[in-house]
Formats: sequence, structure tokens, C-alpha cells
Amino acid sequence: MLTQEQNELLTRTGPGTPMGGLFRRYWIPALLAEEIPEPDCPPVRVKLLGEQLIAFRDSQGRIGLLDEFCSHRTASLFFGRNEECGLRCAYHGWKYDVEGNCVDMPSEPEGSNFKNRIKQTAYPCVERAGIIWTYMGPADKRPELPELEWALLEDDQRFVSKRWQESNYLQAMEGGIDSSHVSFAHRFNIDDDPMHAGTEGLKYLKADTRPKFEVAESDGGLVIGARRVADEENYYWRITQWIMPWYTIIPPFGTHNPLGGHAWVPIDDENCWAWSINYHPSRPLREDELAAMRAGDGIHVKYLPGTYRPLANKDNDFLIDRQAQKEKRSFSGVEGISMQDASLQESMGTICDRTKERLGTSDAAIILARRRLLAALEELDSTDVLPGAEPEHQRVRSTSIILPSTVPFQEGAKEALIAEPGTDFVSI
Amino acid sequence: MLTQEQNELLTRTGPGTPMGGLFRRYWIPALLAEEIPEPDCPPVRVKLLGEQLIAFRDSQGRIGLLDEFCSHRTASLFFGRNEECGLRCAYHGWKYDVEGNCVDMPSEPEGSNFKNRIKQTAYPCVERAGIIWTYMGPADKRPELPELEWALLEDDQRFVSKRWQESNYLQAMEGGIDSSHVSFAHRFNIDDDPMHAGTEGLKYLKADTRPKFEVAESDGGLVIGARRVADEENYYWRITQWIMPWYTIIPPFGTHNPLGGHAWVPIDDENCWAWSINYHPSRPLREDELAAMRAGDGIHVKYLPGTYRPLANKDNDFLIDRQAQKEKRSFSGVEGISMQDASLQESMGTICDRTKERLGTSDAAIILARRRLLAALEELDSTDVLPGAEPEHQRVRSTSIILPSTVPFQEGAKEALIAEPGTDFVSI
Amino acid sequence: MLTQEQNELLTRTGPGTPMGGLFRRYWIPALLAEEIPEPDCPPVRVKLLGEQLIAFRDSQGRIGLLDEFCSHRTASLFFGRNEECGLRCAYHGWKYDVEGNCVDMPSEPEGSNFKNRIKQTAYPCVERAGIIWTYMGPADKRPELPELEWALLEDDQRFVSKRWQESNYLQAMEGGIDSSHVSFAHRFNIDDDPMHAGTEGLKYLKADTRPKFEVAESDGGLVIGARRVADEENYYWRITQWIMPWYTIIPPFGTHNPLGGHAWVPIDDENCWAWSINYHPSRPLREDELAAMRAGDGIHVKYLPGTYRPLANKDNDFLIDRQAQKEKRSFSGVEGISMQDASLQESMGTICDRTKERLGTSDAAIILARRRLLAALEELDSTDVLPGAEPEHQRVRSTSIILPSTVPFQEGAKEALIAEPGTDFVSI
Repeated sequence: MLTQEQNELLTRTGPGTPMGGLFRRYWIPALLAEEIPEPDCPPVRVKLLGEQLIAFRDSQGRIGLLDEFCSHRTASLFFGRNEECGLRCAYHGWKYDVEGNCVDMPSEPEGSNFKNRIKQTAYPCVERAGIIWTYMGPADKRPELPELEWALLEDDQRFVSKRWQESNYLQAMEGGIDSSHVSFAHRFNIDDDPMHAGTEGLKYLKADTRPKFEVAESDGGLVIGARRVADEENYYWRITQWIMPWYTIIPPFGTHNPLGGHAWVPIDDENCWAWSINYHPSRPLREDELAAMRAGDGIHVKYLPGTYRPLANKDNDFLIDRQAQKEKRSFSGVEGISMQDASLQESMGTICDRTKERLGTSDAAIILARRRLLAALEELDSTDVLPGAEPEHQRVRSTSIILPSTVPFQEGAKEALIAEPGTDFVSI
Repeated sequence: MLTQEQNELLTRTGPGTPMGGLFRRYWIPALLAEEIPEPDCPPVRVKLLGEQLIAFRDSQGRIGLLDEFCSHRTASLFFGRNEECGLRCAYHGWKYDVEGNCVDMPSEPEGSNFKNRIKQTAYPCVERAGIIWTYMGPADKRPELPELEWALLEDDQRFVSKRWQESNYLQAMEGGIDSSHVSFAHRFNIDDDPMHAGTEGLKYLKADTRPKFEVAESDGGLVIGARRVADEENYYWRITQWIMPWYTIIPPFGTHNPLGGHAWVPIDDENCWAWSINYHPSRPLREDELAAMRAGDGIHVKYLPGTYRPLANKDNDFLIDRQAQKEKRSFSGVEGISMQDASLQESMGTICDRTKERLGTSDAAIILARRRLLAALEELDSTDVLPGAEPEHQRVRSTSIILPSTVPFQEGAKEALIAEPGTDFVSI
Repeated sequence: MLTQEQNELLTRTGPGTPMGGLFRRYWIPALLAEEIPEPDCPPVRVKLLGEQLIAFRDSQGRIGLLDEFCSHRTASLFFGRNEECGLRCAYHGWKYDVEGNCVDMPSEPEGSNFKNRIKQTAYPCVERAGIIWTYMGPADKRPELPELEWALLEDDQRFVSKRWQESNYLQAMEGGIDSSHVSFAHRFNIDDDPMHAGTEGLKYLKADTRPKFEVAESDGGLVIGARRVADEENYYWRITQWIMPWYTIIPPFGTHNPLGGHAWVPIDDENCWAWSINYHPSRPLREDELAAMRAGDGIHVKYLPGTYRPLANKDNDFLIDRQAQKEKRSFSGVEGISMQDASLQESMGTICDRTKERLGTSDAAIILARRRLLAALEELDSTDVLPGAEPEHQRVRSTSIILPSTVPFQEGAKEALIAEPGTDFVSI
């Protein structure tokens, strides 16, 4: 349970808000590279942290992310012409390069100096892992580029998708941190997920439906352990990573299956992008795996054609199938892991009213994550280290592992939790 | 004409409002029993007086009406599982019985006492007349169960429907109290209604189009007499009952036809349920009558498939037929008595601005009804009797009757206005 | 750039606002005459300056424009019966004539005097040029009837259409004043417009893409000159008229082509009517010209069937054709001059935030127009002359003309800028 003031602090991310200021200090997954596939392709609208932006790829392939509205008379650059190394407003022809410089102003007399005094807001971008990332913070505070394990792999070792979630980012991200709901919302889906097929871990998962949770702070966020009895002397641990400010990594099932991860990025305070990533650190994804991911299986979704909005959405009650629910083919009756989460998270209202919650021991990770976000707000000006922004904070893995019951999980799983490039990961 | 303050007092019914407090002291028609037709059927969303609720029928057939949002993390119980005598949240498995007790909390360790400290808001329900009624007020103030004549009849003597009206309840209910508009909005429909067929009253109705109105207070609300000249020595009276807080009974045409009634129940301040009931106190409804009612004739309506929203609604200008209007097949061009009313009432805006009205003598009943509602607010704490809540306030009938012009209608129609179980009603 | 306060002053036109007060002093194009084509036809809703009104043509062909909501109980007169020289409310039968008098009140007793105390707000109307104009200001301030050149021509010399623009009137009107955007937004369309065919002016237009602008005040508004080099000693001038409060006239191309004009009229603060007029002062429009106009060519548009909403609208990104944009078949990729403007103007937001603009020398006319509107607000009470309201302010023309470079355009074009009835206009 939070106070209304705490809830506001955590959920408001627009310009000028404290949490918006913190988030602008990190690299932000902004759009899929495929949305602007080639030089001089049509520009696309992008909304991040409440700011309306326009993305384009110029004639030389450089990526621009500008304020959507032209500095001149505020017409949208969406209708602009992407040509000859710049985006030209369709109203009076003002033209901007990827850095926001006004490089042509044909409506003014030749020789006018006016265009040199115009600067369109522009955010630097980088393309990595099929994603265009941007940095919206102060220029002198720009952190190193993202080094999450999945961001550094070869393209054929990774599959990335995004979907529009019609809720605040926080209740979406809390679902990624909250291991407890897996036993319920996803109960009858665990077998079906191609990421789970034929693994030993499943045996323990089904035998003990009331895991105990332990949560520890990591340099970059939290490590969250869910412990189940394996045998008289050992525990089966499933350990989730939360990397600040919005990344989560799903504990794997067996080393032969791909890993999974998410990023939960605010569009504005009432919408977010749920990014979903599958990856394998030591082999390319197989064609059958990719086909399933493209078809919207596992953590990915089926879309309304031409959009990133899920086919199952709040306007159609997420296509809940009451018969499947009754017959225990699906715990919630909603199809797909991601949409099971989204249906419940969106049902809380666009911004969950956390003054009305009643949290239990299984909510420990959520409680700690909120606390860390609030603490980071306070530390923002006093320290030099931003949790989760350093490459070493990002080079982590989740794991599922058997440990003697006498060994603390952070110790026993220490090496398994590091993403050493080129190494295999640990998972049963 | 009301002051803005009076209009607010009368139209606002959410939690914490004075009128909302008054209405919560009565039994409230909440949903059709057929919406939750059998044990363990899917739960349905119900909104009443601005509160979002979820209704379900448990494994033993008991009815639950709970706060829609789970006490744990505020996910909607709409996506829940209705199973084994309780509704289980699909997020973390918390389970509630019909009284709102948390009877299972599988996300917490076995032996945890946490669930005993959780109580989901739950309102008691009763099923009567094909309607599920609820009581949302203080437990120690619960009144006796509803004893409106139509609520106590055998199932085959009654037909009930509901429709969504996109306006505040008050302007809807005022239409039920206001006998004057019948001569205009419904002018060319009176013959068509199966409830009117072949009755002597029609003769007087058509001969005198300017009735005089007399209104008297009853114990439970108002009795509203509309008087027309029958012959030199007699009046033809049509007498409507308003039973507080929101029931109206339509004066009958002949004893061989069914009676009609309504309830006008706030969904929130900008929407209401218009309940419509046909019934006959001394015989089952005939199959042809039921077929017409099911088809949306008379006071019932045709729906958008799968909803309780009328097919003719404000998005399509209520399918007004200008040709029918011009040719006097329909006074307003809108089809059906209920939709004629709804079209005009919704056209006033979702909450009618009563500071702009100009009321005449024909509006006497509306003026008195508002006055009684406002007076009841003041009396709420000082008296023990809540008008309309006592069974004897509810056991009333409307009537159409010939009386000598020297006899006051309340006196002359005294017996006809009482709903004596088992007796025939008086009507010409 | 404006202050927020100035922007509010200029864009707010509802009842009680300063600009709304100014606009109500002028005759206002309210609806097309064809919307109420014949006596006793169905009434239509009209919204102007934030007021919801209902227009009808009575049995004798007189035009009424009344407050939409009945004085009695505020039901909409849209559902009313237009019959026997009045509009009768469908709820209780109150009937109003075109002057707003309540001429029948059948719900009250015969002989009641109540109806004489009721006056429905009614605005006087006049039909001219296929448009129904209304005056919404104080009765004693009513100006003379509109005498714009196109308003006084024979019906066969003129074509009028209107389209709904989903933005404030001011950003729409600014597009009509702003000659500069023509070289960009409409660049590849100038040849196509039937109004431009085969004229000498085009030669100069294409040769010099950076015109210089000069703006002068006229009695009724502004005259805006765009000057291009014709040869060593002469300029090619294109001169636009702005007639207060909302009329613009497009400079012609050659005297054999029709002229064009617009009116930009607030529906409410977030919507406006863009009226488009083609006319020829000295000949009827040809059938091929009319066919093109009816088909939505030139300054006219194609509609969503049954509405005045353009087929290309903000819900479908104005059907932007990126291929046509890339291949320079269309500068913006949007089809049609009007929709090119509308797409850009609506993209600014429903009310453009002028505190964020950066205006250049080419925006001089816009700057002056805003200044004149603000000045007119201040002068409203102190002077007798309302700019643009006098017939002589309205009898003006736009022109395209060659003048020696030593001659000021107002002087050299003086006669060409006057709309002398029966004379040919000047244009190359």
C-alpha cells in the first residue's frame, strides 16, 4: 500500500516530473528498427514519457528523433518529407537534420540568418538489437550504451517484439517482478510455452505450489528468488533479475531453451510499451522457434493488423474464453502469457490506485522495487552511480538452479547470475 | 426550475452524496437473474450508484455482489474463476465467498493469518421477480424485502426487461411521473400498444386532449390524477403511482390487459437502468403477449445484439423516421414508447440543467416529486419511516376509473389504488 | 509568438468571451440553404460559436434558427415536428415560430397566459448565395446584409461548399492569410487546379520561389501582397484580401478562370466550418467547372457519405500517400489543396499553442491579422465602425497583376482591388 503522493511520484513520468527526470537519465527503447526500415522512409510518430516525437532515418541512414511539432508554426512533422538528409515540414518547407538543426528555411529571404537561431528538440539515437534506443536526458549525463546480454548478441540469436499496453508502466513492470502470479494467472500455460519444453524444473514447479520468496538488492536493481522444495536437502530456485529502471529477465527452463526478457517503457502515464525479447546466448534461434514467436506464441502476441495493439484487448474483454477457463485449459480464460498479464493489469485502471492494495509476503519484491525507485529519486543528485545504468549492472542473467538448503541463493547462484559473454547459462 | 445546488443534490448518487445515502437505504434492482443463470456461471460486471461491482452465483446458487476490484492488488474479479463456492481472482488466486470473506489465499504461506484480515466489500442480494435486488446501506438499517405487487406474483404473471438509458436517472423517472407528455410524445402509439387494445378508456382519452392534473402525497410517494370529462356528471380519471424512490406504475387500460410499471435506477450520474415490467394480478400472461414483449413491443425495446443497449440510440438519432413523423404515424418519428421517452430525455444532456426549465401547471407532479426527494434527505436522520420502503407503501396500484365530478379522486379511487393480493384490479 | 493570454483571447468565441462578442456583431454563414431545402422539412442541428441551435424552414418558407433546447424541459427540438408555421417539441407539444414565440402550449389549460411569457432564443436569418446567414448579436447593432462580391452574384455564377475542420477557426483562417505556404504545401498542385489552367502568372510563380511579402491595412482587414520578379523593371504581384472577421479571397489566375474565396467560422473552440466559394463576376460557371467542384476538386473536398466531414481526415492520417509524396506528385502526399491545409492545421492540435511558435518575415500577414483582431476587441465599444462589417469593406477583390517595381502595390492595384459590380476583374 502506498500513499497517494508516493503513487503519484512513481507513476508520473512526463517532462518536469521527478520520475520522468530519473528515467531520462537512461537509454530508452524507443521503437523497432523495422519501423523505419530504410533511408528516406516515411517518418513515424513515437511517444515516450509523455513527449510526442517523430522518428526518421535520413538519406545516409542516420536516425533522427525530433519533437513532432515544427518550431515554426507547430505543424506535425509526421506529414513532412524525408529527403536529402533531413525532414522537411510540409507546411512552409523548414527542414531539420537528425540533430534538430534547421538546415533549410525556404520561406525566408535568401541570406536570412533566422534558421541558425532555430533548434528543434532532438534526442540522440542508437540502433542495437533491432531496437532504436534514445537518450532524453542532459547531454553531459549520457550513460554508456546498453549492454544487456540480449542487446549484445548476434541478430540471429534474438527475437524482439513490442506491444501496446493500455496502463501505466508500473503495474505492467510489477507483473514482471512478481513471481508469485505465475502459479495462478499462467498455471495451465507453463507446459505449452516452447521455452519450457522438456525441462526438469517443471517437476518441482508443479509439486510445490507455494514457493517462498527471498529478495536481495543487486547493484543494478533486485534479484528475486522463489524457492521450492527439491528434496530433503535441496531447494529448487527460480531467480528473476530486475534491472533498473524497467528491465526484467525471466528465469529459464533448461539450457536448451531460449531465455526471455522484458522492458516496460512509459508511452505516457496511461500507456506503456511492453517489449518482449527471446534470446539464446550460445546459439542462433531455430526456425521453428522463430516461427512460433512471429506467430505471437510464448511471451509475444497476435496483433490487430497494421498495429502493435494486441488482437485481444480491453475493448473485447481480451477475448476471454469462459469455457477454457472452466475446463482448466486456461486459468484465466485469456490466451497467451502476455495477454493474461495485460488483461489483469489493465483491469486495475489505467493508473492503479495503490492506496487500496493489501500486500502480503509474496509481494516483497514489488515493495522493494518501489522503494528502490523512490530511493533513486532522492539519490539522483547526490551520487554519481545510477542503478542499472552501468554496463556491469546490465550483464546479468536469471537462472533456475538446485542449491543445498543451507546455502543462501545469492551465494550459491552467484556465477549463474552473471552474463559472461560467450558462456553458456545455468538452468535446469 | 431548480437552483444549481438543488439539481446537484437530486442528481448525484455516488458514494458520499446525500441522495446516494438515501438511495442506499432501499433495496435496489441490480441485475436480471438471467444474467447469472446458474451456479458457477461467469461473473458479470454491475455498476450501481457509481460503484463498480461484480455479480456471481456460487456453486450452491448463492448470489454474490462484490466490489469489482480484488483487495490484494486491485485486479478486476471479472477475469476471476467462479468455482467451488467462491470467486477466485485470476492474478494471485485470492478467493472470496458471497459475503466477501477471503476463503483462500494460496499466494501466502500455509498457516498465514493474513486472509482473515481481508474483507471484500459485499452487498446482500435477494432474487425476486426475475430480478436480483441488493442492499447497499448500513447493515442495521436494512428494510423489509420489496413487496411491489409485480414482485410478488407468480413468474408466469410477469415479464421484466431492462434497458440502458444514457442519462441521469432523474430525467428518466420524471418521464414516468409526467402524465402530460403521453398526449404528445406517444400520441399515435396509444392504439398500437397491446396493453390498450379494445378498452373504453381510449374513447375519453381521444375526446379530451387537455386533461387537468391533480397530485396528492401518498405514504410512499405520490398519486397523480389526470382528469378528463366523461359526460356531464362524471370524470374519466387516469391515476399514476410514484413509489419512492424510483418506481412508477402506469394506469391500466381495461382489466383484461396487463398492467405496466417501471423502476429508474442510477448506474452512475450519467446513466441509468430503465426497468420495464408488465404483469397481470389475476392471470398468467398469454403467449402472444409474451411474444410481443420479448420482441420489444409496448414498453420494452429492441436491443443491439448481445447488449442491453437499445438498437435505436443517440448514436443513430434513435433511428428517427421523418416520413413517419410527417405522416402522423408517429408523433416524434421514433419507434416505441420507451425510445420516444429516451430520445427526448437523453437529448436534454446527460444531466438535465434544471436551472433553465420553465415549468407549467402540467408539471405539478414533477415539482412535487423533487420536493419529496429533497424533503426525504432532510428527514433521513430524524424519522424512522423511509417513504416507499415499507411493504404497505409498495402494495399500491394505478387505475383508470369513472368518478362523479363531485368526488375527489383519492376518495373515489381509494380501494382501486390498493394492491390487495389475489383481487382483480379496477380499470376501464 | 503570442502570450497564453493573447492566444486565449483570439481563440475563444463562446458566449461571454470577448472574441465571441465581437464575432456576434457580424452576419455569420450558418448553414447551406440546401440543408433545409423546402418548407416543413426536417430541422437540422447547427452549432455556432459554441451555441447549440436548430434550424428549420417553416410552412411559408421562413427560416428559423432557435436555441436547440425547448424552454419547457430542455428536450432537443431536433426531435420536433416542423408543421403549420412552427417547430413543435415532441415532448409536450410546445410550438415555436421562427421568431422564437411560443405559439401553442397544448399541455397547459386553454386560456392559460403562460405561453406569452415564453421566448425561445431565436436569431434572425437571411438566405443569400445559397447560404443561410444569421446574426447573433444585440438587436440594435445589426449591420447591413453581407455584400461580398460572391454573395451578390447570380446563382449560376457561384459554387459554395462547406467542410468540417477539426481545429479552432484561427489556425484555419491563418492558412487563408498565409500566402507563403502555397509554394510548399501546394507546390505540385498548382498546375492541376482548374482555376489555374493556362495562365501567364504561373510562369512567374515557378521562376521565383521566394516571394517578398508586403502587408497593408485596408478599411475592412488586410491586403497582402506577394511580390515576384517579372523582369528587370516589373514585379508580378499576387494580392490576397482578408476581410474581417473571417473572409479571405484567393488571388486569381487569369480572368477566364473563376475566383476563389473562403470563410472560416467557429463551430466551437475546437472545430470550425471551412466555407469554400468559387465564382466568376462576369459569366456563369461552366458545366465542366461545376462538375469538378461537385466532385471535390480544387478548393472543394470529397466527403464521408452523408456528412460534411472530409473523406480524408485525421482518423486516417488524411489518407497520406507516401509514394506520391516521394515521387513529387504531391508535396505533402495529401490529396487536394483544402485537405493539405487541413491536415497540417489539425496536426497543430485543436487549439494551436502559439506560445511555441517562431515566426519569420513571411508570417507578417498573420501577425498583423492577429493584431487587428485584438485591436478590434478594444475598439468594439469606443467606435461606430466595425472593420469588415460595412458593405464597402466587403466589395473588394484579390488580383494578380504586373506593376513597375517603383510603384507601391496598393497604389498600382488600387482599382483592381475594388469589386465594382458588373465589371471584369484584373488578373494575369
